[in-house]
Amino acid sequence: MGMVDLDEIRGEVDSALAGFFDPATLAGGIEPHSDDMIEVIEGFVLTGGKRIRPVLCVLGWLAADPEPRCRAPLIDLAAGLEMFHAAILIHDDVMDRSATRRGRPTVHRVMADLRAGTEQDGEWYGTCAAIVLGDLALAWADKLTCRRLTADQLGRVLPQIAQMRHEVTVGQYLDLQSAGGRSADADLAEMIIRYKTAYYTVYRPLSIGAAAGNASREVTRVLHHYGMPVGKAFQLRDDLLGVFGDPLVTGKPVTDDAREGKHTALITHALTAASPPQAMKLAQLWGKPDITEAEVDTVREILTATGTVRTVEHLITDHHRAALAALDTPHLPTEVADALRTIADQAVERDR
Amino acid sequence: MGMVDLDEIRGEVDSALAGFFDPATLAGGIEPHSDDMIEVIEGFVLTGGKRIRPVLCVLGWLAADPEPRCRAPLIDLAAGLEMFHAAILIHDDVMDRSATRRGRPTVHRVMADLRAGTEQDGEWYGTCAAIVLGDLALAWADKLTCRRLTADQLGRVLPQIAQMRHEVTVGQYLDLQSAGGRSADADLAEMIIRYKTAYYTVYRPLSIGAAAGNASREVTRVLHHYGMPVGKAFQLRDDLLGVFGDPLVTGKPVTDDAREGKHTALITHALTAASPPQAMKLAQLWGKPDITEAEVDTVREILTATGTVRTVEHLITDHHRAALAALDTPHLPTEVADALRTIADQAVERDR
Repeated sequence: MGMVDLDEIRGEVDSALAGFFDPATLAGGIEPHSDDMIEVIEGFVLTGGKRIRPVLCVLGWLAADPEPRCRAPLIDLAAGLEMFHAAILIHDDVMDRSATRRGRPTVHRVMADLRAGTEQDGEWYGTCAAIVLGDLALAWADKLTCRRLTADQLGRVLPQIAQMRHEVTVGQYLDLQSAGGRSADADLAEMIIRYKTAYYTVYRPLSIGAAAGNASREVTRVLHHYGMPVGKAFQLRDDLLGVFGDPLVTGKPVTDDAREGKHTALITHALTAASPPQAMKLAQLWGKPDITEAEVDTVREILTATGTVRTVEHLITDHHRAALAALDTPHLPTEVADALRTIADQAVERDR
Repeated sequence: MGMVDLDEIRGEVDSALAGFFDPATLAGGIEPHSDDMIEVIEGFVLTGGKRIRPVLCVLGWLAADPEPRCRAPLIDLAAGLEMFHAAILIHDDVMDRSATRRGRPTVHRVMADLRAGTEQDGEWYGTCAAIVLGDLALAWADKLTCRRLTADQLGRVLPQIAQMRHEVTVGQYLDLQSAGGRSADADLAEMIIRYKTAYYTVYRPLSIGAAAGNASREVTRVLHHYGMPVGKAFQLRDDLLGVFGDPLVTGKPVTDDAREGKHTALITHALTAASPPQAMKLAQLWGKPDITEAEVDTVREILTATGTVRTVEHLITDHHRAALAALDTPHLPTEVADALRTIADQAVERDR
């Protein structure tokens, strides 16, 4: 096994996705009515995105099976996770009323703008179209996943994929339930993190890849001990970027998280550390539907003054260390451990 | 093989679904936050519904394998199709803004009413919750499907399931695109029927069951020749019930199809047969957002006066005959052919 090149893996996944969108094979006789729908999803999936889930899926497989006879099934499985993620984001953006994602208009905005000024209600059409296009991306994720795996691989992988889909959707539901609640319920915030990110973004992609590669119990255990803290660190970094990030780099406005009143661990920590007047101010602003950039500045000041930013940075460092420690094991191929170390560093240090 | 008892199959599927909703196993540690979400989906899935897809799936399997060693995997696969259908209906009802389904409030209505009168916007919350609950039902469909099938069965069944999901979602998209268009584009109406009903409601469930039971090429061919006309007849009956049905029996208001401006074969035929004044009236009324019951009466008069009702009834009869003729074959076990005959009769003659 040579060096594991993360950029090369991303390139392979992007090629598999791009090939999948070929209208001649995908539409199967329903052109021209379906051309725009394929283009909109294709544009969304192929432009931007960190590809962290497919890369982890490939690394999970290589951890179990460092020299796979054929890489195509592996890359398709990984691409299927990216397609599933696109579906989740399309639905998420509708629910959050986000106008941009990855620096481009969101799918419901693109579709609403196509009908703007017609006799139909463009906004509602955008919502409906995004529901269907998200569902379509889900169906396409299935197609990609089962396209090349053997029956045995499918039998090992599918219960994991079903569990991942269950977890992330339950996380979405808890998120929706708690948004605007502005409570300091740390257990709930922790649960949302576990479901929406620690499992979904890091551990499940690794374990799905590992299952396809027929991993031993030891390898699976190592990936779990690595994946959970990386997932948590990833989410905490996301929480910070959601308030302190540069919108030109993150591709989304800094008011988004605040306007939604996202139930993040960041806010839970802040509410716990805040003085009564600070807590009251935070409760007023977090979840305010028309929050201004100046008000987000006030949120930032409270997060800094209460020491919350420092606390969360410490947590990120602790999780990062725990993840690296889990990689000190003879059970992983060295090249895979090196690549996982790079990913952990990137998850923690990124600015988007 | 004894008599195939359709009510018994429905009972088995209902038991599998009811067992699946056990919060202790399903929620996996996220109670109590998730209790209401499980209850809402459970109420929707277990109350009402004709169970036509799961029954056909079971018959498809029995057509290929009349004495399966164990029925549990077969019933779970069939129940998974019903769960998938619930997901599609939950999203469909949001898009159509339908208030009732199967005589009960739709999922987005139930969720909106839970938040009515609070500081949050109840209507938008209902929409978001229904998007997530639909996605959750999709994830649960996966869980049911892969719960008991062998790897070989999964390998045969999954490409078919992925194709079914693709087709029905493309059908939804075409439906959304064409609603309110009020055109006489018969090709498009035909395509929507093929995708949304002929394949989805009848042929795919049969063929998914047949694939799981490892059907021969002959059996698959017979099921196709039977399934396509039954699906078309089923949809045409649905179109008629959508305008002429008794809302107390169908469980949905007679204004729903008209208000949406549903692009049905019924309306396409009417526009083709109508005089210019009739066509203009129909174009005004079909898709009118605030259509009244009196105006639906006018639509009914035009459909009758133009001979459209008679034409569509003839088409239904032709499809019904073609389906029964396909069953005249030595390739199907007699009991399965008898059951399929009963289903064809019910699809054509039903009043809900």
